[in-house]
Amino acid sequence: MLVSEEFRYEMPTKIEFGVGKIDNLAKYVDEVNGNKVLIVGDPGVLKAGIIEKIEMPLKKAEVLYHTFSDIGTEATIESVDQAYQLAEENQCDVVIGVGGGSSLDVAKSVGLLLGNGGDIRDYVGLDKVPSQAKPVIAIPTTAGTGSEITRFSVLSDKKAKAKLSVGSMFNCPTIALVDPALTITLPPHITAATGMDALTHALESFVNKETQPISEALSIEAMKLISRSLRLAVVQGENLQARKDMLLASTMAAMAFNTTRLGLAHSLAIPLGAKFNIPHGVVNAILLPEVMQFNLIGNTQKFIEIAKIFGEKVDGLSDLEAAEKAVAAIRKFNEDIGIKQNLADFNVTEEDLEEVAKEAMLSGNTAINPVKPTIEDFKDICRAVMD
Amino acid sequence: MLVSEEFRYEMPTKIEFGVGKIDNLAKYVDEVNGNKVLIVGDPGVLKAGIIEKIEMPLKKAEVLYHTFSDIGTEATIESVDQAYQLAEENQCDVVIGVGGGSSLDVAKSVGLLLGNGGDIRDYVGLDKVPSQAKPVIAIPTTAGTGSEITRFSVLSDKKAKAKLSVGSMFNCPTIALVDPALTITLPPHITAATGMDALTHALESFVNKETQPISEALSIEAMKLISRSLRLAVVQGENLQARKDMLLASTMAAMAFNTTRLGLAHSLAIPLGAKFNIPHGVVNAILLPEVMQFNLIGNTQKFIEIAKIFGEKVDGLSDLEAAEKAVAAIRKFNEDIGIKQNLADFNVTEEDLEEVAKEAMLSGNTAINPVKPTIEDFKDICRAVMD
Ligand SMILES: [Fe+2]
Ligand SMILES: [Fe+2]
Repeated sequence: MLVSEEFRYEMPTKIEFGVGKIDNLAKYVDEVNGNKVLIVGDPGVLKAGIIEKIEMPLKKAEVLYHTFSDIGTEATIESVDQAYQLAEENQCDVVIGVGGGSSLDVAKSVGLLLGNGGDIRDYVGLDKVPSQAKPVIAIPTTAGTGSEITRFSVLSDKKAKAKLSVGSMFNCPTIALVDPALTITLPPHITAATGMDALTHALESFVNKETQPISEALSIEAMKLISRSLRLAVVQGENLQARKDMLLASTMAAMAFNTTRLGLAHSLAIPLGAKFNIPHGVVNAILLPEVMQFNLIGNTQKFIEIAKIFGEKVDGLSDLEAAEKAVAAIRKFNEDIGIKQNLADFNVTEEDLEEVAKEAMLSGNTAINPVKPTIEDFKDICRAVMD
Repeated sequence: MLVSEEFRYEMPTKIEFGVGKIDNLAKYVDEVNGNKVLIVGDPGVLKAGIIEKIEMPLKKAEVLYHTFSDIGTEATIESVDQAYQLAEENQCDVVIGVGGGSSLDVAKSVGLLLGNGGDIRDYVGLDKVPSQAKPVIAIPTTAGTGSEITRFSVLSDKKAKAKLSVGSMFNCPTIALVDPALTITLPPHITAATGMDALTHALESFVNKETQPISEALSIEAMKLISRSLRLAVVQGENLQARKDMLLASTMAAMAFNTTRLGLAHSLAIPLGAKFNIPHGVVNAILLPEVMQFNLIGNTQKFIEIAKIFGEKVDGLSDLEAAEKAVAAIRKFNEDIGIKQNLADFNVTEEDLEEVAKEAMLSGNTAINPVKPTIEDFKDICRAVMD
């Protein structure tokens, strides 16, 4: 099996998992020695009453806080600037991020800035952060990005139509408060898209050249949980067991890929998402089967394992036929959970592919993919899901 | 499946895995901001030339160090006192533990004392340590205890013929330097015994009431690695792939049980080991099949999974028959790797069982076991492996 011969594995974030964990929020603020909190959320969680649920236990315990919820569907550099200013003005020393990936990524960025000063633009890239962030408590309300665990924040630079990534172990939250009750009201299409992001994380980490048995173990279990529960979470939103499985799966997938990184679906998803405004989970879901097909010969045994996890029968098949069953399983998965878009639906055209492919080629995820792609390969993958 | 509905998972130790990692030891001392090192080893690693291998890269980098290697096969409270005194006198601010569980447990204890002052006896129990330890770099030379990861140190009080346990998240080493090359020269009987300790960790965590999917994932992968490689590591000591698998398996099993704890084999192994001087891995290996048999009805599906991991055919069997295959598989494992002892070989008699059972009952591992035992149950388990 293709695994790294030597590796570092670390997981600085403490995970608190369970229904109702947010009711003890003041305890966790105390655990990280916080005196004054900045809550970072988005209009979605504000509207859903979730920010109120976060504020309540703080009020009760007389913990001082300020709330920033001026975040769009994407985390922008401008939001980081504003939230940081608010935190600075009010001498906040702990940040609580609540919401999807964008809220958490802004919260993490503010934590970095409170600890290091400067401007978030200084820290774009890998390992550019000099020292410890201020404590961040990350409370995910979607089961997808795994940002509550990871060292990565993806920030949008709207003017440049680009996504910038900050990657540093100092960017891992202090505590991930993983409360499945918060995901019960997620609508089906967001459940589906974010769930496919989580699946793409588990799967791309599992087959890439940097994986090792610790991440493999976490990827396998995450895929098992997703295999049994993503469909249910989409069609039975109130199914708490399915929501638990999915939220834990997305956290575990993040524990897997945080050190190993990902693959070509993410190499392409970042530029495509930025230029054409495609939700991150959706663009991953569109790309994943084609990327798998492309990768089959680079790690055949792993794809056979994936096929089995997703319930495919592989007895009597050749190895490559068995591996292809994994691709078929993921295509079926997309269909069942209602992800039927293609790139043309987001106005991607043949003319755009050269630039997208060139950007994808530069991604750190490309170098560790099990099959080395050419620019033409990237374009072919996109063409196959164009319309 | 029996899993905890809410949990905390944390893993403060950074893992560096790979052949030859110890050659960069000075880099890791620098990473933890160490100025002066106390090396803690035992006469075994000294004789095997391993302490020299640890000292070499430090000398080369002109890192100051003192070496303490006056440790027996068990970590004693007296060794901790002496090693701490040496560290204090020489103003050491980082501890490197190298060896089996006993060396690592002494090293961890010194780290705790350097950070907290006082006497190690003050910290016996769970969560009795008030604050951060000084940095500890743990370098295991056996694939068994997982002490390079865990919050536990087991210390012997020779006068009282008792084992004392210190358990605190502050007791987790800062860095685990996991270098499989160091385990190549382990003799077969120690490879076998320590390997069975690792297996007992993975398995007891997997079936107990505190487990959760993160630990389950790690247990499963650890058991797979042990299933394919422990026999080979015993009969082909120089098989580097088998050594890699085993060392990583023992680290992963520790990542699994560090938060979930264990089961009845360990409840009994601690008093039996202390009173009758039975190597920890051996007493676990002797007890494990009987404890599994006792636990079968408490978590049948998990035992079926274990049977499959160990290559048993379960098609066409009833669930309980399939689960029993797991017991048979572990019995065969013991045989194949040459563990043929029983309790009478260590002079345990029927008269001793009452006291052993009473102590076992008080263990924290007893309360979380899938089947609740009586004193008589503990005695019966021991009687079954008496001679
Ligand atoms: Fe993603
Ligand atoms: Fe043990």
